[in-house]
Amino acid sequence: MRKVCVVITARPSYSRIKTVLDAINQHPDLALQLIVSASALLDKYGSAVDFIEEDGFEINEKIYSVVEGEGLTTMAKTTGLGLIELATAFNNLKPDIVLTIADRYETIATAIAGSYMNIPVAHVQGGEVTGSIDEKVRHAVTKLSNLHFVSNQTAYNRVIKMGEEPNTVFITGCPSIDIAARVLEKPDLPIDPIKQYGGVGSKVDLTNGYYVVMHHPVTTEYRMAREQVTEVLKAVNEINKPILWFWPNVDAGSDGTSKGIRAFRENVENNNIWFFKNFSPMDFLKLLYNSNGIIGNSSVAIRECSFLGVPAVNIGTRQMGRTRGKNVTDIGYNHSEIKSAILHNLKGVQTTGENIYGDGASGEKIASLLAEQEYKIDKILTY
Amino acid sequence: MRKVCVVITARPSYSRIKTVLDAINQHPDLALQLIVSASALLDKYGSAVDFIEEDGFEINEKIYSVVEGEGLTTMAKTTGLGLIELATAFNNLKPDIVLTIADRYETIATAIAGSYMNIPVAHVQGGEVTGSIDEKVRHAVTKLSNLHFVSNQTAYNRVIKMGEEPNTVFITGCPSIDIAARVLEKPDLPIDPIKQYGGVGSKVDLTNGYYVVMHHPVTTEYRMAREQVTEVLKAVNEINKPILWFWPNVDAGSDGTSKGIRAFRENVENNNIWFFKNFSPMDFLKLLYNSNGIIGNSSVAIRECSFLGVPAVNIGTRQMGRTRGKNVTDIGYNHSEIKSAILHNLKGVQTTGENIYGDGASGEKIASLLAEQEYKIDKILTY
Amino acid sequence: MRKVCVVITARPSYSRIKTVLDAINQHPDLALQLIVSASALLDKYGSAVDFIEEDGFEINEKIYSVVEGEGLTTMAKTTGLGLIELATAFNNLKPDIVLTIADRYETIATAIAGSYMNIPVAHVQGGEVTGSIDEKVRHAVTKLSNLHFVSNQTAYNRVIKMGEEPNTVFITGCPSIDIAARVLEKPDLPIDPIKQYGGVGSKVDLTNGYYVVMHHPVTTEYRMAREQVTEVLKAVNEINKPILWFWPNVDAGSDGTSKGIRAFRENVENNNIWFFKNFSPMDFLKLLYNSNGIIGNSSVAIRECSFLGVPAVNIGTRQMGRTRGKNVTDIGYNHSEIKSAILHNLKGVQTTGENIYGDGASGEKIASLLAEQEYKIDKILTY
Amino acid sequence: MRKVCVVITARPSYSRIKTVLDAINQHPDLALQLIVSASALLDKYGSAVDFIEEDGFEINEKIYSVVEGEGLTTMAKTTGLGLIELATAFNNLKPDIVLTIADRYETIATAIAGSYMNIPVAHVQGGEVTGSIDEKVRHAVTKLSNLHFVSNQTAYNRVIKMGEEPNTVFITGCPSIDIAARVLEKPDLPIDPIKQYGGVGSKVDLTNGYYVVMHHPVTTEYRMAREQVTEVLKAVNEINKPILWFWPNVDAGSDGTSKGIRAFRENVENNNIWFFKNFSPMDFLKLLYNSNGIIGNSSVAIRECSFLGVPAVNIGTRQMGRTRGKNVTDIGYNHSEIKSAILHNLKGVQTTGENIYGDGASGEKIASLLAEQEYKIDKILTY
Repeated sequence: MRKVCVVITARPSYSRIKTVLDAINQHPDLALQLIVSASALLDKYGSAVDFIEEDGFEINEKIYSVVEGEGLTTMAKTTGLGLIELATAFNNLKPDIVLTIADRYETIATAIAGSYMNIPVAHVQGGEVTGSIDEKVRHAVTKLSNLHFVSNQTAYNRVIKMGEEPNTVFITGCPSIDIAARVLEKPDLPIDPIKQYGGVGSKVDLTNGYYVVMHHPVTTEYRMAREQVTEVLKAVNEINKPILWFWPNVDAGSDGTSKGIRAFRENVENNNIWFFKNFSPMDFLKLLYNSNGIIGNSSVAIRECSFLGVPAVNIGTRQMGRTRGKNVTDIGYNHSEIKSAILHNLKGVQTTGENIYGDGASGEKIASLLAEQEYKIDKILTY
Repeated sequence: MRKVCVVITARPSYSRIKTVLDAINQHPDLALQLIVSASALLDKYGSAVDFIEEDGFEINEKIYSVVEGEGLTTMAKTTGLGLIELATAFNNLKPDIVLTIADRYETIATAIAGSYMNIPVAHVQGGEVTGSIDEKVRHAVTKLSNLHFVSNQTAYNRVIKMGEEPNTVFITGCPSIDIAARVLEKPDLPIDPIKQYGGVGSKVDLTNGYYVVMHHPVTTEYRMAREQVTEVLKAVNEINKPILWFWPNVDAGSDGTSKGIRAFRENVENNNIWFFKNFSPMDFLKLLYNSNGIIGNSSVAIRECSFLGVPAVNIGTRQMGRTRGKNVTDIGYNHSEIKSAILHNLKGVQTTGENIYGDGASGEKIASLLAEQEYKIDKILTY
Repeated sequence: MRKVCVVITARPSYSRIKTVLDAINQHPDLALQLIVSASALLDKYGSAVDFIEEDGFEINEKIYSVVEGEGLTTMAKTTGLGLIELATAFNNLKPDIVLTIADRYETIATAIAGSYMNIPVAHVQGGEVTGSIDEKVRHAVTKLSNLHFVSNQTAYNRVIKMGEEPNTVFITGCPSIDIAARVLEKPDLPIDPIKQYGGVGSKVDLTNGYYVVMHHPVTTEYRMAREQVTEVLKAVNEINKPILWFWPNVDAGSDGTSKGIRAFRENVENNNIWFFKNFSPMDFLKLLYNSNGIIGNSSVAIRECSFLGVPAVNIGTRQMGRTRGKNVTDIGYNHSEIKSAILHNLKGVQTTGENIYGDGASGEKIASLLAEQEYKIDKILTY
Repeated sequence: MRKVCVVITARPSYSRIKTVLDAINQHPDLALQLIVSASALLDKYGSAVDFIEEDGFEINEKIYSVVEGEGLTTMAKTTGLGLIELATAFNNLKPDIVLTIADRYETIATAIAGSYMNIPVAHVQGGEVTGSIDEKVRHAVTKLSNLHFVSNQTAYNRVIKMGEEPNTVFITGCPSIDIAARVLEKPDLPIDPIKQYGGVGSKVDLTNGYYVVMHHPVTTEYRMAREQVTEVLKAVNEINKPILWFWPNVDAGSDGTSKGIRAFRENVENNNIWFFKNFSPMDFLKLLYNSNGIIGNSSVAIRECSFLGVPAVNIGTRQMGRTRGKNVTDIGYNHSEIKSAILHNLKGVQTTGENIYGDGASGEKIASLLAEQEYKIDKILTY
């Protein structure tokens, strides 16, 4: 039995890895070790930990690592604190491999602890290109990793170009698409999402259509976070349909984003926005599938929504460079342009989606590779 | 005035950056901020901090960050602790750019703190290829950095291939060569190195030639550290000339290496080895220049010695992949082969050296680029 | 010049030490070193740092140390992170003495760093008795400290009984009373506190009287924090006068308290409560002096308000054991009893206050003792 | 079943708690949770962890926490790092009580993590009086603890005087005496201690008597550590019997002590000293029982040796204030006085020992109290 240790640090990371966890648990040659840390433990960011436990996964260690503060200093400190404690956890759990997910800033701690401790590191979602600090983190993690599970051929090509050995890179698709595929099997909305998931804001009626917003601060532009979210709030407030707004991740600037949202809520009394913090990944995708479309700068709009065919208005630089499907309209931070883009482009699912980020079976593919591939720790640039 | 913050974490890193520090101090548009941390503060690893202060540099912060332990876990923890405290230091010092040196494991903390805090990161010695964890660290740091000061055309080509923008990569040579160049101007040995620098071991007479040994544990092979150093000890002990042995860096496995050395010293009474811990970078190069040659796995043998023309026997995988001059003979961990390689190849400087790692003016070149180049924090893979 | 390093970790701690900082700055034989950390840096808890800078104090180091989380685990981690970084700061600043304030959980880090580093530790407000974790922290800090500046004879007697040497304990009064004394010289309200200090809530008119509420979670009862604050909210909401509510400190349970407040604000639309986060210490006391009285469990009600003569309704166990003046009415967590206590007892300042916590000149007394007393690090139980 | 979590941070702490661990394991109502950290994990300080595992105890977590450095700064940082990680460990293990041992500087981390997390804290060996930083740590830990297991009536009286509630303080004796009692049942020496336990130094013959030395640096005098140990080395080197010297604990100053020992070993070739690092607690006591006597400043000389009747020469201030039996001779740091005291007083066991630190059944007593006493977290000064 190979012990595979997965470190989950945020709500969206759990969505992206859930089907891999399932597949590891079902694989006869693999044993799952699960560490939950950083914002995945915090109520303020949607308590991913509660969903993980509800889904029946056993958690080996919980590690609080988010250092509180207004800015970027604490992103670095959070990463350092996570690194210290992941080293202890790995030393106690003795995994055969660690799996790190995507490109959030704190995930580099997993890759460093693993690689420094001579534990092979597997990385999901390398080789993509975006804006923001994620770009640096993603490629640095690639250079620390031994196995690469990428979303598509473009990502594969980039990882190879960066000098990784071809026999360590695999196009598995992104496991977040697996959940989207399950959604397609039974796409009905939860009966009453507001009742089930709580939240705050204006009472909304979803029967005649609605939009979903998910908007994160961009760390390299964090001083502008408040202004940016305010443009988005203005745009969606002028639209004559309910808005379901999902609270952003922890990040430098999230306080700017949060303040923008709070100020809006204080000042604009009769708005049409309901705010959610917690949602199960699958219900979230169902909500998207039944919506008129998604607005903001979340990667969900680019990835899962391309598979589902949900139209998206993508705002600003955060997803810059990511491979796009035909569902995406890109736009800058001007509220009237955003409004116009929403009204013209977001009309709900019209056509079938595309497989550019996976075909719905990534979880099993990744588990099989984890069970079968040779584990190595040494590597060297191919040129 | 641009504030350039340099973080020095080890004795050899100081040697590699000293002329850059001088050049920053002399440049009218640059102000130096200096942080000394990790093994650079520890007596056991040669107290680089003492040399830095003797050389007249003002230190802004000292940060103890080495977590003690036998193995790899504490390498990760040391890096995490350094990251936490560097974030605080950068937040208090507010540098315009941070400079990180080469590829020791703890240097990634500097690159992460800088990049996460939206401070541009400059990296010296990217694009080289070696064995060990250094390989992963070096390229990960490249992916986190905004300016790259590389040693030679080969390194330049690799950094470009990894997807860095060409206008951010500069062939400056390695500043360690600058010190070697100064040595050539006045290459006489210090009058009595043992008197000046202390140390322990068998009394040795340097007048009829001697060898220098510098041997580090290889972190990805750390369980073998003791065996490996024992082979080296056996080999040099059978040679009929004095050996000047320099104590290794802090690294997982250094305890294995240390134990091997201590056991040898307990058991082999009439040996010919003198052990040093502390040496000024320039006196160390003078000692090399006047020696029969260097033995071990230090990068000095590959870099500075290629410039000086000092012949070298390089043992094992640690320098695997690094560009070599004609001064280097590679050999495995067998004591009789090592001995034979020493006797055949190490006959002191015979010819002029090569410029493959620089021409002796890297410090000024780097300082000029730090003063003149545009500072950016955003970047994106070029493909 | 003796270098006195003061560590401020929270908004109320700044209020308690401000006049000492002034007196140190004015004393010819003392030099002030100032470190601001923990919740004193966080917007969410009133950004004490902004007031400190506005008041013209120079800050030597800012240290973010609050680890985010729902409960008690992160109180311990916050203290550990503070301890690590205070050690570095003290090593760089090299103070002759460190001054630690009162009994918040994170202040023990200052006392440990100082005492372990052979720096004498001076403690303000030892020897008092209260409920909650503060009780343990306060007396543990006493055992780590070398000089004790206590509020009154009762506190003095307790410190002596605990085994401290009498020539190291001084009744200086509490410096928070100094600010209260300055308030009495010119007690007029700021022209429009809501305009000046912002905040959120129901618009209130202060011209016909108002109450002030300050209510903190009790860490040893932290699961009940939400219920407790809800009783207080209910009680004050039923009163026909404006309520000025001050946001609580960071503490385990503050999320419970915060949630209680947020839920109340969502559900009770036409309430009479205005919520403040930020206030200068002096304006806060003026606000109290001109109010009908104070409600909650803040030590301000016991200390400053006894001096000012402001009547107080003190709820629950948090101030249990603290010496009281005749201004205080104690009550449990029942909203109708709280309401009744408010209506019967809070009628504004009627008589002159009492000096049980000081006479208004504590800052100068403490500065003089810091300048004149012998500094020792060794001590031994007196029995 | 009550879960009792014991944190062991050093070799001597293991000796002091071993019989408690046995008794907890044998008690039907108690479950043992064991955390090993700090110097207990380090080879350099005798790898207590190896003995713990050999003795069959299951370790739940290993936590590397010693930050390396020459001085006192790193004592504080080590404590902070331990505190951070103990909080995580307690949060994952969820003990019903934590047990902290004696007064080493890093043990305060256990007491803080426990008390801040609302876990009751039990403390062994409170109420004693000594010199050095231990004095401050011990009493601060008492103020953070809820149950006190003290060695004797004097210690009991002091804990009560410090304001602890009488029904929480118990005279159990010190569990280190339990091991001494077992030694008396079968006091024969291990057949060849040098063969069994290794070490370095001059070959010694134990058949005609020998002395044992255990000498620790005193943290509040750490700059003098080297001089002090040198006086001891000189004194014992002039005596015509073998010396068995045990390597000191990790502490600021241990590098000074280590350097003093290393310098002596380099310079004095024909000495009579053998140096040990590792020893099982019981064999160590047997070695003492069969020796001429013990020299140095270890508490073993005061505690276990009073029970065994082994004569002791106690040097310097480190044990100042501790209750003494008639076996102890106190002396300052002058090598000729030390020599003279050894020759006059150390003649091996002559009479039966005294029970001032326990009667040999402390382990069971403590386990019973842990099983039966009410666990409380709140407390308040009794005066």
